[in-house]
Amino acid sequence: MTIHLPVRGRLGLAFAAACIASLSLSDTTFAQTPAAQTAAPSTTAVPAPPAPPPPVLLSREALAGAIGVREQALKSDESYQLLESLTTEVGQRFAGTAGDKAGVEWAVKTLRDLGFTNVHTQEVIVPRWIRGEASFDVLAPYPMSMVTTAIGGSIGTPDEGLDAPIVMVQDIAALQALPEGTARGKIVFFNGRMERTRDGSGYGKAVRARTEGPSIAGSLGAVGVVIRSVGTSKNRIAHTGTLSYNVSSPRIPAVSISNPDADLLERQVAQTRPEGKAAGQAVKVRMRVTARDLPQVRSANVIGDLPGTDLANEIVLICGHLDSWDTGHGVQDDGAGVAIAIAAARLAASANPKPRRTIRVVLFANEEFGLSGAGRYPVAIGDEGVANHAFAMEADLGDGPVWKLSARVPQQYWPTIEQVHRVVRSLEVELGDNTSNGGADLGPLRRLGVPILSPQLDATTYFDIHHTVNDTLDQVDPAHLRQSTTVFAVTAYAVAIVDGPVPRYEEPQAAPTTPRAPPER
Amino acid sequence: MTIHLPVRGRLGLAFAAACIASLSLSDTTFAQTPAAQTAAPSTTAVPAPPAPPPPVLLSREALAGAIGVREQALKSDESYQLLESLTTEVGQRFAGTAGDKAGVEWAVKTLRDLGFTNVHTQEVIVPRWIRGEASFDVLAPYPMSMVTTAIGGSIGTPDEGLDAPIVMVQDIAALQALPEGTARGKIVFFNGRMERTRDGSGYGKAVRARTEGPSIAGSLGAVGVVIRSVGTSKNRIAHTGTLSYNVSSPRIPAVSISNPDADLLERQVAQTRPEGKAAGQAVKVRMRVTARDLPQVRSANVIGDLPGTDLANEIVLICGHLDSWDTGHGVQDDGAGVAIAIAAARLAASANPKPRRTIRVVLFANEEFGLSGAGRYPVAIGDEGVANHAFAMEADLGDGPVWKLSARVPQQYWPTIEQVHRVVRSLEVELGDNTSNGGADLGPLRRLGVPILSPQLDATTYFDIHHTVNDTLDQVDPAHLRQSTTVFAVTAYAVAIVDGPVPRYEEPQAAPTTPRAPPER
Repeated sequence: MTIHLPVRGRLGLAFAAACIASLSLSDTTFAQTPAAQTAAPSTTAVPAPPAPPPPVLLSREALAGAIGVREQALKSDESYQLLESLTTEVGQRFAGTAGDKAGVEWAVKTLRDLGFTNVHTQEVIVPRWIRGEASFDVLAPYPMSMVTTAIGGSIGTPDEGLDAPIVMVQDIAALQALPEGTARGKIVFFNGRMERTRDGSGYGKAVRARTEGPSIAGSLGAVGVVIRSVGTSKNRIAHTGTLSYNVSSPRIPAVSISNPDADLLERQVAQTRPEGKAAGQAVKVRMRVTARDLPQVRSANVIGDLPGTDLANEIVLICGHLDSWDTGHGVQDDGAGVAIAIAAARLAASANPKPRRTIRVVLFANEEFGLSGAGRYPVAIGDEGVANHAFAMEADLGDGPVWKLSARVPQQYWPTIEQVHRVVRSLEVELGDNTSNGGADLGPLRRLGVPILSPQLDATTYFDIHHTVNDTLDQVDPAHLRQSTTVFAVTAYAVAIVDGPVPRYEEPQAAPTTPRAPPER
Repeated sequence: MTIHLPVRGRLGLAFAAACIASLSLSDTTFAQTPAAQTAAPSTTAVPAPPAPPPPVLLSREALAGAIGVREQALKSDESYQLLESLTTEVGQRFAGTAGDKAGVEWAVKTLRDLGFTNVHTQEVIVPRWIRGEASFDVLAPYPMSMVTTAIGGSIGTPDEGLDAPIVMVQDIAALQALPEGTARGKIVFFNGRMERTRDGSGYGKAVRARTEGPSIAGSLGAVGVVIRSVGTSKNRIAHTGTLSYNVSSPRIPAVSISNPDADLLERQVAQTRPEGKAAGQAVKVRMRVTARDLPQVRSANVIGDLPGTDLANEIVLICGHLDSWDTGHGVQDDGAGVAIAIAAARLAASANPKPRRTIRVVLFANEEFGLSGAGRYPVAIGDEGVANHAFAMEADLGDGPVWKLSARVPQQYWPTIEQVHRVVRSLEVELGDNTSNGGADLGPLRRLGVPILSPQLDATTYFDIHHTVNDTLDQVDPAHLRQSTTVFAVTAYAVAIVDGPVPRYEEPQAAPTTPRAPPER
């Protein structure tokens, strides 16, 4: 069923007038709704701004139900138990590996065991890349071996490795600003540091060196790329993650080294910089990578529903991704999201009064290495399936806690979000704004207009372990996971019980929003 | 020159009497000195306890000099600069490797450049062991790969690895208490956790599983050993260190796994314990190690002197070890000790008034994998050379800070230590006792009676990085290193200027001391 646009007004004119006064120009987008058109006066020569649709609010009973969800959730350890089970019984779940397959089996069994209905998999074709071995050695001036790993998707080097001087730059702009020919025949060392931030924005800024750096360096004649790990760990472990080769640039191999090794390489460069030359040319290195591509293989999105009542054909989607990188155990990234999604869905669905909409858990395949499952989902369910999605939310930034409740919902639902916020405010959750992008796996649904709820997870320490061997269970704080599960559960419950029909979200035209969430790759 | 026993008294009888009153029975050992014999009354029928030798105290000028050393040292960053240089230009220095050779060259050049005299090397034969690759995989019930490394000295496995069920125990006593035959054909998993302590004593308790465990397991018919890392790191990195095969037991290969992996293995064991069986038998693993021994090779102790004045033929030795494990960069273990020794010696030697004794820096070869250099040193210098050593001190527990000043000196020098303590007390240094063993490299000299000074380094976080890849420069706190260098410099200065001759230390007979320092291997 398609969700149509008409909005049922529930509020008096005084409240509506106050809302008009507080709305910015960008909010007039919502004037397209029939309700707004009805409110527009027809007798003036210059058309007045059409009235916005009236706010949609939770009933007293629904609010009491939301508080009940919160209280139940704060007593539950189910998300931690799920995470411990996934970690102990499966571990890493990199796309196309035996772990990926075991993860899908775990998810299907777990959803069935926990009483979900309509439990099924959705076939997803995923790339299959073998990390192989990687080594990175300084040959001169001071020989030493560094802790390294291949960047996801990197091609390999010749068996004997690749020997070259380095060119050290802070970022892509600095590389592009070098005199022509400087990078030719060299290994480019991207040495920019990632900034530690609560909202993860430091990652978004730093990650371009990894994703785009190899192709840009390749187009400038470089033979390889080494990056300072995009991550905040001070441990001698290298952070992996994916690169994105540009089809028109030469493919060159790329590795990351740990932050302490990058410090050391920087010191060697500083000691040996020849007068008037680019930094690093007196430092010779050897990199060796046995990474390689294999034919694509099959993986799967795993889906399960907890049916609603009178609006059971409308979906509130909670998602995480089932895959992980191969280095760690896929706990914070994104076992935590898987656990939050399943446990929050169950807490919301078992509340009283029962949620009206169906709460669906989707555990996406291969987020890390190409967003395969997220791209497949709307295609597999078709336009009508997408249209049934009233709201969607994603957990993919670790165990939390949730520190801010943001959204990207039709304006008339913002008051609902404010109500939800009042229910979870005591858990140290701020109220965010209505411009959130949600997470990476929500991209395709968001672009199709599905309204997004965005409980923002605290990312302050997340990038210490992100995409490393250190993504293990002992790094999880059970109290954080419980708080995050609670906020997701309350939010899911509220939007599963609130009145509809829920229109599509349409981008405000006057003041385009800027993306807030980091690209999660 | 041999240092003889007579003690020159400098104090009045009242002070001597007070000292007698405060001395315990164990202190009567010192009655052998001629001064004490002179003081013993000869007219009573039952011989009274002989009087102890009078305390030896620093003069007012010497104390002022010690305070001057402290003030200079607190303004100096030389030890950090030395450590940065060693780290940047050499890195790992495992016995017999190219890094070991580069370390010796660095040390000779550095001591010469810094004005040391008599700079020379002392040939030391060291074992040569190749770590190779190691893998440790759980095959059942839940397949996953764990982060592992070979224990130093381990033999290898067959190329295809070694498949066996495990037997999980907390320690050697628990293994020995199992029913006969339980360990036969199994891989023994020593799962005991190391306790975090300030004095490093937690290490001493935990390390037996690594050093003695493999031979004990081998004698019980086990085919391999895996240990929880002896270390306090919560990172997914394995701590190495040496084992000690017993010649009469079968040699079996041994690896360590990271603490988070040990947690995970423990969880798999807990989930699958069959009724009435030893823990772990339903967990099957495969370990593979390509470690191997090569013929012994040459390394060297590196020695340099800063000559004293009228007692220049007496030595105050400050030592650290130049070698390191191959995993990290040998920064806290024991680049910090090398840097402290060199910088402290220079600070002490340049004070006014000048120290009377020669301050000698010895950077020992191969402490980690057999104490080769420490064993060689007294043999190479001979009995007379050893007899010239008035005092010795060692830095080998990281960058510090020093939290306690202990010693193992003839009783008449304890008041000197108390004076030194008053000079460094403002740096948050406690006064310890006179039963310290010093460090592992001082063992041979200590057993020959050389008095020991022991500024104790704070080991609270040291075992987070000990014997791991994380032993890198960024883990060093320059303020800690400066404080430690200061305390070593003040202590070395004081015992290089204090009156002599300094007798050998002899073990008190009534109350044998218990070892305080952990075995540093």
